[in-house]
Amino acid sequence: MAIAGPEIERLIALLAKLPGLGPRSARRAALHMVKKREALLHPLAAALAEVGERVTVCSVCGNVDTSDPCTVCADASRDPATLIVVEDVADLWALERASALRARYHVLGGTISALDGFGPEDIGIGRLVERVAGGGVREVLLALNATVEGQTTAHYITERLEPLDVTISRLASGVPIGGELDYLDEGTLAAAIHQRRPFS
Amino acid sequence: MAIAGPEIERLIALLAKLPGLGPRSARRAALHMVKKREALLHPLAAALAEVGERVTVCSVCGNVDTSDPCTVCADASRDPATLIVVEDVADLWALERASALRARYHVLGGTISALDGFGPEDIGIGRLVERVAGGGVREVLLALNATVEGQTTAHYITERLEPLDVTISRLASGVPIGGELDYLDEGTLAAAIHQRRPFS
Repeated sequence: MAIAGPEIERLIALLAKLPGLGPRSARRAALHMVKKREALLHPLAAALAEVGERVTVCSVCGNVDTSDPCTVCADASRDPATLIVVEDVADLWALERASALRARYHVLGGTISALDGFGPEDIGIGRLVERVAGGGVREVLLALNATVEGQTTAHYITERLEPLDVTISRLASGVPIGGELDYLDEGTLAAAIHQRRPFS
Repeated sequence: MAIAGPEIERLIALLAKLPGLGPRSARRAALHMVKKREALLHPLAAALAEVGERVTVCSVCGNVDTSDPCTVCADASRDPATLIVVEDVADLWALERASALRARYHVLGGTISALDGFGPEDIGIGRLVERVAGGGVREVLLALNATVEGQTTAHYITERLEPLDVTISRLASGVPIGGELDYLDEGTLAAAIHQRRPFS
């Protein structure tokens, strides 16, 4: 039974596909927009149209942005000697939130996965090796997920980069800041013990 | 520090204004859309533009929809003898989800509130009285919120409708279905006791 016209019902159905929004919150969001037409609905429609028209994949790093090279690659203040390799754009955004390292990125767009039939060339590892071989990179930080696929990919990349004169590093494993030991899994705790550091 | 171009940052800022989305989930939603351009971003931009262009307030009941009269008013299968009065379009949508009564609605768009300087005519109670006086309505169900303002408004409407030959009703108060007594406030429990019904 339709409560509203087909245009509004369609808007609700599309909003419900966004991560974090279910059918009920999509309904609430749609109603909120309909009520705030000038302040929210029109600007959002315009923003979406503009992003939709301009969004592209960065030819340097594989990030998605509205310019090519992307905002991160175009930022001259970043250190070109450090290259952070991530699986996904979401990981790049997450690392940038930490503001810990003003480095460059390389987005693989996936991991090597025998199960899904994803080989090294499906995620363009050749392109990464070429980029590093091109010079200027001293350290490659493999910021891949701590999953089987992520670690397989990390090992493969390490092998491929071995002939080149670069330091290869990985993210530290351990107890999350603010985390309670009681709630952590055994693997994380074991890693935190094995990689213990001097108390300073 | 911008991670992405200004168009994407603006999209994120607008998404973060939606109810149920914070800055982090807005970022996730924006990225999800950027990645699913064909399946989500373009259709959503089109849906928003269409809704933005066509949305209007129903001249009969005050609902918002893309047609006037709205989908609910235009539905001939609804009983015109029962009129449900609600504060807000969100309440209309909520009651429709319950699918308990195929009635007509009247959306006030607010409540009488001395504090906010909202009088009876600011929420068009004259229009409601006219509509009921126009005939065909046998029951007016005041589905207003159980707040001081909601109940003040309900009492005022009752007074104004008194001269007309209509039954005035209100929503039942009591224990929510699936609710646990232990978690309910005293007011609700007192209402549930006073309005107890024969066990059948």
